[in-house]
Amino acid sequence: MAKDSYLVGLIGSGIGPSLSPALHEREADRQGLRYLYRLIDIDTLGVPPEAVGDLVRAARDLGFDGLNITHPCKQLVVGHLDELAPQAEALGAVNTVVFDGGRAIGHNTDVTGFAASFARGLPDAPLERVVQLGAGGAGAAVAHALLTLGAGRITVVDALPERAAALAAALNRHFGTGRAACAAPDALPKLLTGADGVVHATPTGMAAHPGLPLAAELLHPGLWIAEVVYRPLETELLRTARARGCPVLDGGGMAVFQAADAFRLFTGREPDTARMLAEFAGLADAVGSPR
Amino acid sequence: MAKDSYLVGLIGSGIGPSLSPALHEREADRQGLRYLYRLIDIDTLGVPPEAVGDLVRAARDLGFDGLNITHPCKQLVVGHLDELAPQAEALGAVNTVVFDGGRAIGHNTDVTGFAASFARGLPDAPLERVVQLGAGGAGAAVAHALLTLGAGRITVVDALPERAAALAAALNRHFGTGRAACAAPDALPKLLTGADGVVHATPTGMAAHPGLPLAAELLHPGLWIAEVVYRPLETELLRTARARGCPVLDGGGMAVFQAADAFRLFTGREPDTARMLAEFAGLADAVGSPR
Repeated sequence: MAKDSYLVGLIGSGIGPSLSPALHEREADRQGLRYLYRLIDIDTLGVPPEAVGDLVRAARDLGFDGLNITHPCKQLVVGHLDELAPQAEALGAVNTVVFDGGRAIGHNTDVTGFAASFARGLPDAPLERVVQLGAGGAGAAVAHALLTLGAGRITVVDALPERAAALAAALNRHFGTGRAACAAPDALPKLLTGADGVVHATPTGMAAHPGLPLAAELLHPGLWIAEVVYRPLETELLRTARARGCPVLDGGGMAVFQAADAFRLFTGREPDTARMLAEFAGLADAVGSPR
Repeated sequence: MAKDSYLVGLIGSGIGPSLSPALHEREADRQGLRYLYRLIDIDTLGVPPEAVGDLVRAARDLGFDGLNITHPCKQLVVGHLDELAPQAEALGAVNTVVFDGGRAIGHNTDVTGFAASFARGLPDAPLERVVQLGAGGAGAAVAHALLTLGAGRITVVDALPERAAALAAALNRHFGTGRAACAAPDALPKLLTGADGVVHATPTGMAAHPGLPLAAELLHPGLWIAEVVYRPLETELLRTARARGCPVLDGGGMAVFQAADAFRLFTGREPDTARMLAEFAGLADAVGSPR
């Protein structure tokens, strides 16, 4: 009688400029679905990040089909779910919740999304020695994705040494001893000399944090550069790396594929990722940089 | 950038078969709106009717634009709202909540919906002396509507004498002494002899309550008959009354106009009520009687 309908949302802080509603709703429109993607901003609501459990239960009761979860709730939400998919369990962080009857099941499409984007954008990139800048939530997700893709060894570099050490230890526990290490930023010149590629997972390069996350002269043509920042799509790091001859991957692919994976989980339907990538480029150009 | 989108729902008990989602969503589709109407059934959730306040607050926080409220929550919800429209305040019952920023404003489109349906379906009906069967929630709403339309005097008949008396007293307080009276069912033969019309507002005639709410021989051609039951659209009362020469009004108009009024409150857009009436007839035929 009625067409298939889906109600989803995003819980997080400062999410007003999110492109997720447009990305999801446009893909759903093209598939002829009734689909509504609502922003549930804890800042607007005036509730602390710990309220995520109550918000998830309320969404389940009010007929939501699923939720995306973002900063600062991705780890806090874990304790409020009934089940975790393997990547979410390994990572201890959830960015997608699917309601199945009364049950809330946590997934992490940051991991699957980065893996899909990397496999598509840098398919032949060597993965023996990878240097990763940033050991926060995004860093943990992309490190899991790269090790799942078969990276030999990831060296995590963070301005906070204990954070880099904790992530490296967690990766070694999950993927096997020796798959991860940590280092301080002053080790970068030596590390990059022998590396195959660099993943950038810090906020540097976003409009609010302009600049380069490492010295330009360290970028040699034997390195691929994968970016997590996607606003703007063309960061100073990508511009510099491209000029110096490095193969590069922008952050848009991860943003799109995590959305596509969430869309698939919410609806059980296959999204058209090429169409979503094209949409995203237009959206990011239109609203991206001034954020 | 995105098309206008609306998220609304219905809170009540046993609302699975409601036609409201289809009525609202089809009208919205024709207006090119993104519109989702969700059923929030307290039976399914396993919560008591008193939970309506928490559900309303949760809906506000999760980005709903408004709610319809039905049995058994229409009166319970009143204490949880920030403001009441005049009909809702007079009636002490709310079937529509609109969220305006953080504020929840209660309306009653059962009153406005019945008034619109009556004015359309029985435009020249005399209203000097009206007999009303049923003093429950629907009865209160239609009595308010008829007195607002200028009915001279309404006599409320109910199997529960104290309920009839309480409604008559409330109507007299609001509309002026002498506008309402109450009577027992055994007074119906005398009452109907001198009446202009009858409003039927009990469940009799629904699939679960078949039969006639009064003796067929009391229906004389000088009476109009207005029905509140709309499943089935053609009740035994309407069939009998029509056969005996009475002008009749079925319950579909009230169902449609209350939905149309809610749609207007939710969206600020004018619904096409003729189109909604046609949709409703098709929906009621398709799923009506077996409920």
